[in-house]
Amino acid sequence: MLGLRKMLEMETYLKHDDWKIWEDHFHVDKNEVTESIMSLGNGKFGLRGNFEESFTGPSLPGSYIGGIWFPDKTRVGWWKNGYPDYFAKVINSVNWIGINLAINGKILDLGTCRFTSFYRELNLKTGILSKTCKIEWEEGKYLHISSRRFCSVDSPHFAQIHYEIRLENLSGKVRLSSYLNGVVRNKDSNHDEHFWEEVFQMADHEMGYVQVKTKPNPFEVPQYQVGVGMKNSCTQNGTLIEPLEEIKSMRAFHHFDVPAQDGDSISLTKTVVISHTLDHKAENLYSYTENALIQAPAHLEEDHIQAWEKAWEEADIQIEGDLSAQIGIRFNIFHLLQTYNGKDARLNIGPKGFTGEKYGGVTYWDTEAYCIPFYLSSCDFSVAKNLLMYRYRQLPKAIENAEKLGFSDGAALYPMVTMNGEECHNEWEITFEEIHRNGAIAYAIYDYTRYTGDENYVKEFGWEVLVAISRFWEQRVQWSDAKKAYVILGVTGPNEYENNVNNNWYTNYIAVWTLKYTLECIKKYKKQVDKTEKWQAIIDQMYFPYDQNRMVFLQQDGFLDKELLNVDQIKEHRPINQKWSWDRILRSCFIKQADVLQGIYFFEEDFDLETVKRNFDFYEPMTVHESSLSPCVHSILACRIGQIDKAYEMYLRTSRLDLDNYNQDTEDGLHITSMAGTWLSVVKGFAGLKVRGTQVEAKPNLPSHWKSLSFSFRTVEGVKRIRIENERFEIKNI
Amino acid sequence: MLGLRKMLEMETYLKHDDWKIWEDHFHVDKNEVTESIMSLGNGKFGLRGNFEESFTGPSLPGSYIGGIWFPDKTRVGWWKNGYPDYFAKVINSVNWIGINLAINGKILDLGTCRFTSFYRELNLKTGILSKTCKIEWEEGKYLHISSRRFCSVDSPHFAQIHYEIRLENLSGKVRLSSYLNGVVRNKDSNHDEHFWEEVFQMADHEMGYVQVKTKPNPFEVPQYQVGVGMKNSCTQNGTLIEPLEEIKSMRAFHHFDVPAQDGDSISLTKTVVISHTLDHKAENLYSYTENALIQAPAHLEEDHIQAWEKAWEEADIQIEGDLSAQIGIRFNIFHLLQTYNGKDARLNIGPKGFTGEKYGGVTYWDTEAYCIPFYLSSCDFSVAKNLLMYRYRQLPKAIENAEKLGFSDGAALYPMVTMNGEECHNEWEITFEEIHRNGAIAYAIYDYTRYTGDENYVKEFGWEVLVAISRFWEQRVQWSDAKKAYVILGVTGPNEYENNVNNNWYTNYIAVWTLKYTLECIKKYKKQVDKTEKWQAIIDQMYFPYDQNRMVFLQQDGFLDKELLNVDQIKEHRPINQKWSWDRILRSCFIKQADVLQGIYFFEEDFDLETVKRNFDFYEPMTVHESSLSPCVHSILACRIGQIDKAYEMYLRTSRLDLDNYNQDTEDGLHITSMAGTWLSVVKGFAGLKVRGTQVEAKPNLPSHWKSLSFSFRTVEGVKRIRIENERFEIKNI
Repeated sequence: MLGLRKMLEMETYLKHDDWKIWEDHFHVDKNEVTESIMSLGNGKFGLRGNFEESFTGPSLPGSYIGGIWFPDKTRVGWWKNGYPDYFAKVINSVNWIGINLAINGKILDLGTCRFTSFYRELNLKTGILSKTCKIEWEEGKYLHISSRRFCSVDSPHFAQIHYEIRLENLSGKVRLSSYLNGVVRNKDSNHDEHFWEEVFQMADHEMGYVQVKTKPNPFEVPQYQVGVGMKNSCTQNGTLIEPLEEIKSMRAFHHFDVPAQDGDSISLTKTVVISHTLDHKAENLYSYTENALIQAPAHLEEDHIQAWEKAWEEADIQIEGDLSAQIGIRFNIFHLLQTYNGKDARLNIGPKGFTGEKYGGVTYWDTEAYCIPFYLSSCDFSVAKNLLMYRYRQLPKAIENAEKLGFSDGAALYPMVTMNGEECHNEWEITFEEIHRNGAIAYAIYDYTRYTGDENYVKEFGWEVLVAISRFWEQRVQWSDAKKAYVILGVTGPNEYENNVNNNWYTNYIAVWTLKYTLECIKKYKKQVDKTEKWQAIIDQMYFPYDQNRMVFLQQDGFLDKELLNVDQIKEHRPINQKWSWDRILRSCFIKQADVLQGIYFFEEDFDLETVKRNFDFYEPMTVHESSLSPCVHSILACRIGQIDKAYEMYLRTSRLDLDNYNQDTEDGLHITSMAGTWLSVVKGFAGLKVRGTQVEAKPNLPSHWKSLSFSFRTVEGVKRIRIENERFEIKNI
Repeated sequence: MLGLRKMLEMETYLKHDDWKIWEDHFHVDKNEVTESIMSLGNGKFGLRGNFEESFTGPSLPGSYIGGIWFPDKTRVGWWKNGYPDYFAKVINSVNWIGINLAINGKILDLGTCRFTSFYRELNLKTGILSKTCKIEWEEGKYLHISSRRFCSVDSPHFAQIHYEIRLENLSGKVRLSSYLNGVVRNKDSNHDEHFWEEVFQMADHEMGYVQVKTKPNPFEVPQYQVGVGMKNSCTQNGTLIEPLEEIKSMRAFHHFDVPAQDGDSISLTKTVVISHTLDHKAENLYSYTENALIQAPAHLEEDHIQAWEKAWEEADIQIEGDLSAQIGIRFNIFHLLQTYNGKDARLNIGPKGFTGEKYGGVTYWDTEAYCIPFYLSSCDFSVAKNLLMYRYRQLPKAIENAEKLGFSDGAALYPMVTMNGEECHNEWEITFEEIHRNGAIAYAIYDYTRYTGDENYVKEFGWEVLVAISRFWEQRVQWSDAKKAYVILGVTGPNEYENNVNNNWYTNYIAVWTLKYTLECIKKYKKQVDKTEKWQAIIDQMYFPYDQNRMVFLQQDGFLDKELLNVDQIKEHRPINQKWSWDRILRSCFIKQADVLQGIYFFEEDFDLETVKRNFDFYEPMTVHESSLSPCVHSILACRIGQIDKAYEMYLRTSRLDLDNYNQDTEDGLHITSMAGTWLSVVKGFAGLKVRGTQVEAKPNLPSHWKSLSFSFRTVEGVKRIRIENERFEIKNI
């Protein structure tokens, strides 16, 4: 087991205890990975762990605001009818952390300076990122820097930086320049365009301010405006220094010029307010920001730390006896809580959260399939409900989307990737064919309702979503004369290493399930819905591919024509998505991500243990887990069938995916939505927790070296706490 | 039948007799269509029917040189492993037709001037494009223009323009500016780049010259250089006028300034030579061009006309009693002969020839599947042989291409689209999966050999190609335990409205056929080839999808799960490639282009008439023919089974595709390769001609209103001529 952990620990340059992750000297080549890992956020905005100072080394500058995006013109080699016109980009916005330091006119560049010591730390308990370092400025002359920053969780339009320098054996004219900079761009812009343009900027003694707006676009997407203000307070050995103001287009500066001596200490507190037109009218952004800065809470940092403390009280998971697993789960929970706080039903959870640009748009089926259970258990139920409301609000767009593809009568196809409800992905095999996502959206309504016991959402809103999705399935299935059954042709299942297949078992299953559940809801809540006659026929006569010999469900038609190999037989070919051509991947039996097993996980109560076991034993050896969303499902099912070593292997893979940079892509940002999967594998897997309204059940199955596992969870009766030790467990109200 | 022809004749603005196509007033909105139709070429270079004069109306400027291309950086939405790095573009090169006309400083713009008459004509017999028009310059003052041009078929580095103006009630300073212009670009450049850069330009009294080269590229594709020279001879009422020379970057001008009176006639003869580094060293281009211009043949135009006369003697097809069919077939033969003359084994036949940019790269499987029979019958056998040699020379690249996709042991996968043997298409479902193209390349070797009786090609070169393709099939098939047979998974057949299917009947059939034919050749020509043991097993145990009830071959696994509709049931939805989303097309039964029927056409001797009839009757009603390569195959098979009305419908559709702009895309260029299909439907369809070395067989079946059909064709015994009248026919040696 240790060998395995060792194997997985690829990014050993980072150290950790049970709450903190740090780097004790500067790994410039890993800087982009560190930037991702050390991202901060507060649900409203967030940023990567970029330096405040000038830095010419490898870096992906990234500062993002929830709900502020740009419709970048789609880039595609070959157009297909039905493709969306744009790709929604989460956009890099005003850089508000910038602090430049110059001594005698020479600007400090952390990319080229000589560190004699360097330390940076992300504290998961407090949500504070800090750095201390010592730099040899010239031979025998030293500069000490210490900085810390946070995005306030308590007052989520605020952020703050404390920045302090001390001179050792060094003197001269020091200039500290604190600035806001709207001249930023996205690395992944399709056509190398800038997304922002100037509104205005100002700087006086009290504040600096930059207001920018997104460029005009031809897609009727609103032009957002963002106003960022800063207040800077700078002292030299405790004495206040006056700023020199400067503005340039889309930029504002406070320069502090200080004649400094050996031993002098200069400290700067930069308080930032971020406002935008999702929350305020454009003409009010400035006054709102100004007032907020004037009335900034006196104890921003303490309040922020207390807010985190409170969040952890409910959301923390304690694992005794496995430090690696402990920091893994906390790291994941930390980032989930930073990304989405459920207070705004217009927002959702992007695959990279506030930690990178990749994947553009915010909402994938990840939210429904993986994230909702975490928020149900860890936060007020209103958080999960807001995620459901998000889809309800986008129902008209989902209907439009289905119409574009030729469906009618109010059938809805939710987009694969979206920001405002419009589809913005353009691979035909995904956009048009990965329709199982529609099922996950229906499933989330069911999941929410059975967990909370709250039927109001489905009764008031959710049933409309269910009916629209059922109408889609009704039109999407077709009768096969050959099979004398309903079939679903031309789909891509959750396993994206198969494209355009017929009768994907998972898709067929969730389609039938949706129809059943919708009919139940219509009946139960006495809704008048016409033209549902065909639904029961589809439920009764759907075709499901099955292997009579092995007694396993078949992922799709023709699966048994493949050569059935074990992943161990292609060790040197992995990851196949980097080493094999796409056609070879498609022809192979290898599975990117749980597919039949995803269905068995969702509908666990439909299958007996033997069935689960047979299917797990058939599919697990063929699964390469090249999606971050895969190992958690396998971990949970492995727990269920008692394969605890396999479960633990999968757990480490999911929980330390980014800390260990397992897929060699952490530099692009963190796998935020798959972090919810990690949480699932602890709570639904090792603890075997099942909450159904007032009914709570646990079937723990811990890795043998775990001394105990404890965590809190919400139920309709309030927050409870479970502690598991060996096979005993105890659940308490708190 | 007349109703049908009427229905198809959408572009009635063009008039024709049996040899000429003309427009008798200017249809500016159709100008790009006319430009395509009135393209000229001579196998070495060619150009669209652009005006010599300034023209600000709708136009696709296009002047192309065989074998001169640029590797444009690939543009693709989502990258897949194995995608090529570039897309080979046929590039718009130096504009050599340019003649600007100004009177008293005002430049003539054919896009805005007032025509009192306008006539332009393409003469298929002579290969000359001419235009006469009368323009009201100012009220009551007129300008007459007549021009004609050709790309010399006799001396194929030459082109010539005769340009003449006459003033009526108009006088003033006339400036005729004849120029060469290398500042041109491609409309379809992926990243809006220019593809050309300056080498040098010069102009003196004798000549103007522009030498340009393609820009550097990161793909190790050579930078081509092109040198274009012009000689201009201008007279006013018969008196020679001296030019004024001018050069600008990548441009050269001869200006002729003439004080002109009412009634004056000014005429200009512009002789052009085009040379390039496929034929000459870069440092010799200038001297070659200069010498060629000095020694230009005295009777360029007469020689050109004679050369066309000679070509028509052999290639013409005469249809009595159907003018529409007559001009259709001549138009197609004319463009085929203009595009490729078989003198250069480095060249091939692009889908648009010299008539447009679309589809980039030059060589598709169209060459082997449709064009070779035309060239076999209409030209010296060396022409078809050169097309085979082209693929032989590219065998090493085809092996490399297969290696990139994971194949080994000398297996070859010929590219879907190529210029130099490297793949340059990037839709995975085509690039990686449309592997049937490999079979067509093997088939062409067989086709050439049986037609000519010449076994030298296959014995000396072709067998290597066959072995390499067979190695590919050997590795690409796999054994299905479920079916107890070999299967081919994950392919796209000729019908591109199905993607990533299993066991495409056509692909499986041509794979097995290739293996058989290769084994025969190895044996017959006593070649030492090892590791062929598995081939016979594949031949014996290949799986072919088949419907036992209908007794038809099934296009692929699962085809019968579809709802089997007739194209008449979706009339208002056609063309489906414009009206349906891609997934809807894929799920439907509708067929873009002959697939099973393509196989039955290729291997006609393998199937009895009843089998052909059953399959035709099953597939024809589902075929939408949205590929230009489809109707010809249906036409031929319809002839075979005696459905002559259907055959004629399909024939008109293929033969007048561009003249009638049937697919509403003629403005992008002509469908050159499908023109060979038209020829096939006359010769193999209506005439039922079969040539096997010295054996010649015909089974005519003419549309009832055709009085007669006659044409010449090559055999190993020389050129023969067939004349068919009713059901009688006569074959003579000539």
